[in-house]
Amino acid sequence: MSFKPISDIGEFGLIERIASIVAPTCETKSRLIEGIGDDCAVYELSSSTVQVATTDLLLEHVHFDLLTTPLQHLGSKAISVNISDICAMNAKPCYALVSIALPSKASIEFVETVYRGMSETARLYNTALAGGDTSASSGGVAISVMVAGEIEKEKIAYRKGAQPGDLVCVTGSLGGAAAGLRALMREKNVMLEHVKHGETYDKDVMSNLEEYSEAIRQQLLPSARVDIIDFFHKHSIVPTSMIDISDGLASDLAHICKRSGVGAYIEESRIPIFSQARHIADEFQEDAVNYALSGGEDYQLLFTLKTEQFSAIASHPDISVIGKITPEEEGLLLSDIYGMNIDMSTLGGFNHFKGNE
Amino acid sequence: MSFKPISDIGEFGLIERIASIVAPTCETKSRLIEGIGDDCAVYELSSSTVQVATTDLLLEHVHFDLLTTPLQHLGSKAISVNISDICAMNAKPCYALVSIALPSKASIEFVETVYRGMSETARLYNTALAGGDTSASSGGVAISVMVAGEIEKEKIAYRKGAQPGDLVCVTGSLGGAAAGLRALMREKNVMLEHVKHGETYDKDVMSNLEEYSEAIRQQLLPSARVDIIDFFHKHSIVPTSMIDISDGLASDLAHICKRSGVGAYIEESRIPIFSQARHIADEFQEDAVNYALSGGEDYQLLFTLKTEQFSAIASHPDISVIGKITPEEEGLLLSDIYGMNIDMSTLGGFNHFKGNE
Repeated sequence: MSFKPISDIGEFGLIERIASIVAPTCETKSRLIEGIGDDCAVYELSSSTVQVATTDLLLEHVHFDLLTTPLQHLGSKAISVNISDICAMNAKPCYALVSIALPSKASIEFVETVYRGMSETARLYNTALAGGDTSASSGGVAISVMVAGEIEKEKIAYRKGAQPGDLVCVTGSLGGAAAGLRALMREKNVMLEHVKHGETYDKDVMSNLEEYSEAIRQQLLPSARVDIIDFFHKHSIVPTSMIDISDGLASDLAHICKRSGVGAYIEESRIPIFSQARHIADEFQEDAVNYALSGGEDYQLLFTLKTEQFSAIASHPDISVIGKITPEEEGLLLSDIYGMNIDMSTLGGFNHFKGNE
Repeated sequence: MSFKPISDIGEFGLIERIASIVAPTCETKSRLIEGIGDDCAVYELSSSTVQVATTDLLLEHVHFDLLTTPLQHLGSKAISVNISDICAMNAKPCYALVSIALPSKASIEFVETVYRGMSETARLYNTALAGGDTSASSGGVAISVMVAGEIEKEKIAYRKGAQPGDLVCVTGSLGGAAAGLRALMREKNVMLEHVKHGETYDKDVMSNLEEYSEAIRQQLLPSARVDIIDFFHKHSIVPTSMIDISDGLASDLAHICKRSGVGAYIEESRIPIFSQARHIADEFQEDAVNYALSGGEDYQLLFTLKTEQFSAIASHPDISVIGKITPEEEGLLLSDIYGMNIDMSTLGGFNHFKGNE
């Protein structure tokens, strides 16, 4: 018997295999409305209300680097990225469970600082930290967060549901998190070089990170767009589809298109780019648009909307229309600033087991 | 500033610190009925129904050893131990979320086998595997499982609620999991010695594990007592308090007593001991009662009951009355087979960050 490495099928191929193995368990529960395949699982609570639930497992050395991540920010981000998945269903968060595994060198103060970050952020989003698990780790720190949220059944937004003609919209601006990571990684390497050569690494040799601070903040301390969900609910806006941008605009739009059976046409000039991302991209001789398309971790919302609802969002200063949904056979096209159409499916997002593809 | 190691306060001290840090988040949600401190968090779904939710993070080298754990059993146990926490609230499971992090050497077949174990066990307990997360790991395998369950509000059983005079009851028999672990660890050491000396480790030199098979099964493939919850619901039995035995009878009874503000008097002769555990304990020149008291991982239910309800459980072949609840000032006493009273608080259960205490 030969064993195939996971990289043969990649993260999304693996998820498909898992989905088929667990399918028989889902058939036993008629109240399970949506299993694997969206930002959250969807479970019926009553004839009018559903629960949405999501989880993320964050590992040191894979998902975060304690050399560049303040502990309080680590706790905050662990909560925010899960609440972002709740928002992606047009739902509001209710409670969270948190598990943490700690190497023997971790101090009480270490744990308390991480939890203070979690607690402050959870309170900001009106989410109760309701329980969890603590244990020892033989490797690095591991944090698992689960968040449950709620929404009226008719207001839920899935990845599926986009229709040709719908507007493609995005909140905030993109590429900041990837740009911030660039700046942080460069500084980390400077530091490691100093340490390697026995040189002092202090304020005198540190780069002035001030000019990157907004992008670094976006990387270390992203927000979940609960404010946008409040706006939607207040104005009775129900996106025809929605996802949060965790892997990059290209990859996350592809998820919507695949699940909805549609194509999309995006205009590069309309993609809102995080201001400092342009500056950082210039320094690295890269393109900030690529940070937006493939960088990921912006945790903005990408959604589609019936054109009739345009007037409802037109006045919102933090929502941009970047294109429209097309029939499936037209594919995923990006019209660049010269008017050339680029096949977006050749761009990738972050994929565990393959790295950036 | 000095940093204190977690071992200064132990797992339960750490949980108390965390509970105080997250308390402000719980105050924002009036629907959160119970936060940290029980087997599950309890969240109000409607005026008559609550959701109970629990999570466990399982790490290779800490919680499981792939040398002695078949992958399918690993998947099964990850689900069972969480469902056991749902049972401990007198609730039934609804759905589960699973996260898995995999080292680069893990094959597709590895993941599929783990998920097949999860899927078969989840189906057995009528629980939908509804979603989760997959990612790479730079260390060993990590599995995080969250299970949500449901119960009518007036039927929920907490750790608190035991009253002096109540009967102390336990399901099944105890000590099997600890005994099985003993047998497995000895065999693992035999194997490692052979490997170390370049000798073949095959059927000819392997111990005959057949005579330990029931105890090993109890360690590798524990059951959650959903059948007992069905029995309780059918006969309108609501325990005054309940917990599942994951740390050992002594430690888990202490949790009930602490949360309820009571003491307990247990008769050693009434503690049901797993049959093969006696045999294995004899071989190791140990006491099987200690496996029951401090071994843990039996995943049986420990509960207290008003004496008036005794007749309702008397006919159940798999429920034993092992003692009674006493006033707090009488402490936790174990009456041994010679009639001597032993202070159970000097016995310990498993405690991460301290090991067996």
